[in-house]
Amino acid sequence: MTFKDKLKNLTLKNNSLLCIGLDTDLDKLPVHLKKQKHPQFEFNKAVIDATFDLVCSFKPNIAFYEAQNMSGLLQLKFTLDHIKKNYPEIPVILDAKRGDIGNSNTGYAKLVFDYLNADAVTVHPFLGKQSLAPFLDRKDKGIFILCRTSNEGGGEFQDLKVNSRPLYQIIAQHVIDDWNKNDNCALVVGATYPAELEIVRRLANDMPLLIPGVGVQGGDLEKTVKAGVDKDGRNAVINSSRGIIFASQGEDFADAARQQALNLKNQINNYR
Amino acid sequence: MTFKDKLKNLTLKNNSLLCIGLDTDLDKLPVHLKKQKHPQFEFNKAVIDATFDLVCSFKPNIAFYEAQNMSGLLQLKFTLDHIKKNYPEIPVILDAKRGDIGNSNTGYAKLVFDYLNADAVTVHPFLGKQSLAPFLDRKDKGIFILCRTSNEGGGEFQDLKVNSRPLYQIIAQHVIDDWNKNDNCALVVGATYPAELEIVRRLANDMPLLIPGVGVQGGDLEKTVKAGVDKDGRNAVINSSRGIIFASQGEDFADAARQQALNLKNQINNYR
Repeated sequence: MTFKDKLKNLTLKNNSLLCIGLDTDLDKLPVHLKKQKHPQFEFNKAVIDATFDLVCSFKPNIAFYEAQNMSGLLQLKFTLDHIKKNYPEIPVILDAKRGDIGNSNTGYAKLVFDYLNADAVTVHPFLGKQSLAPFLDRKDKGIFILCRTSNEGGGEFQDLKVNSRPLYQIIAQHVIDDWNKNDNCALVVGATYPAELEIVRRLANDMPLLIPGVGVQGGDLEKTVKAGVDKDGRNAVINSSRGIIFASQGEDFADAARQQALNLKNQINNYR
Repeated sequence: MTFKDKLKNLTLKNNSLLCIGLDTDLDKLPVHLKKQKHPQFEFNKAVIDATFDLVCSFKPNIAFYEAQNMSGLLQLKFTLDHIKKNYPEIPVILDAKRGDIGNSNTGYAKLVFDYLNADAVTVHPFLGKQSLAPFLDRKDKGIFILCRTSNEGGGEFQDLKVNSRPLYQIIAQHVIDDWNKNDNCALVVGATYPAELEIVRRLANDMPLLIPGVGVQGGDLEKTVKAGVDKDGRNAVINSSRGIIFASQGEDFADAARQQALNLKNQINNYR
């Protein structure tokens, strides 16, 4: 099954556009978990088991695991394994923001797809289409290309005009017109820029868009949802990380995460 | 000591601009090493011990280690530890091409600088200066920002004109004028584009330039050296990976690597 179909199926089944970002920063975990052997995994397992019926996907950011080196990578693997075993219908987007020349990208694709078994990955466009072949050639996976990122200062290069058109739109156009031969491409556009999101959606038809930046980063939810969905009200993967997973830092963290996730899922659906 | 001083000191001591890329692809290792418990590390150790007096730096690309997941990451750690213990004067550039929003970059900086103990790292410019603060704030480390990459197809976005100037030059200018407050920035410019390299060197004064793409990727050595060095004939970190480390796939691989490294070091010095 393609990533796009997997995403569609779960979006329909769970009636949700919500993606939970598993940005499991060890420093922010509840005290009682920090004593465990695999605190990041135990935390993720509890959050996943409490929210699996509310999401269209999970998105762990590998940076928070690599910060703990081998132990973190192992706990990320356990997390993916837990999802694959118990909730095989949930697509996992690994937020890894990789991008190197071709023979190096082959190594990253092995880590992301063959070892961790993620369904999709985020990548940098900067080295061009040819360099990304080890990712783009994977017909069964989703390749999310960074387009307009959610961070303050993200416009430093992304908004520069090339023939009177901002770079992020040029990137979107290349991906849509030329990179998507396997119908496995998707774009990352931050919720903090709803006007830009609207433009990208118009260009992209029903291509999935990963939209981080609601919640802690401050994106306006109504504008984001209306600008982000396709004509069928789908294919907007609206990500919240810290606002959900760290809703409580006490022993009730998983219940609090479920409550936040439920609220956000419903708010999103109200605006669809 | 700053990265720039460390690079200068070893360049003078070894009279070398040669950087050896430790792109230690497990599939390409000599058969007799593949049976060992830590073949990537054993290979690196032999290459390092055979070439330490010929280089200005070593540059492992983390993609080839992450391809072997935890085991690879451990062997990369062993490799850095070996250099730090035996050749503490050699700067190590970790080619990791990272680039995320700030709080995620904090995780990557932990991996690269605090765990692996690299002296420098390569990063993507795409998310802008602010996002890279966890790297740029490290005064003691070198931050190599991708500018014009060596791969075929690298010009897809990097050569696009912004106000009649190619994007890679705009990036170089931002780094030189605004990002380099700690005098720890450097740029990556491929040897496969000597005309572009010459332009960047003119803008960058004595900023270090990492120049991959001689050897297997086909860059012209004489043009590369003449275009890449600063006015004192330094600060060009000329990288060769596969052409040196896989010069022989037999038991004599380390001797063969030394011979290739010596040849290339001398050729470079002839053109300085």
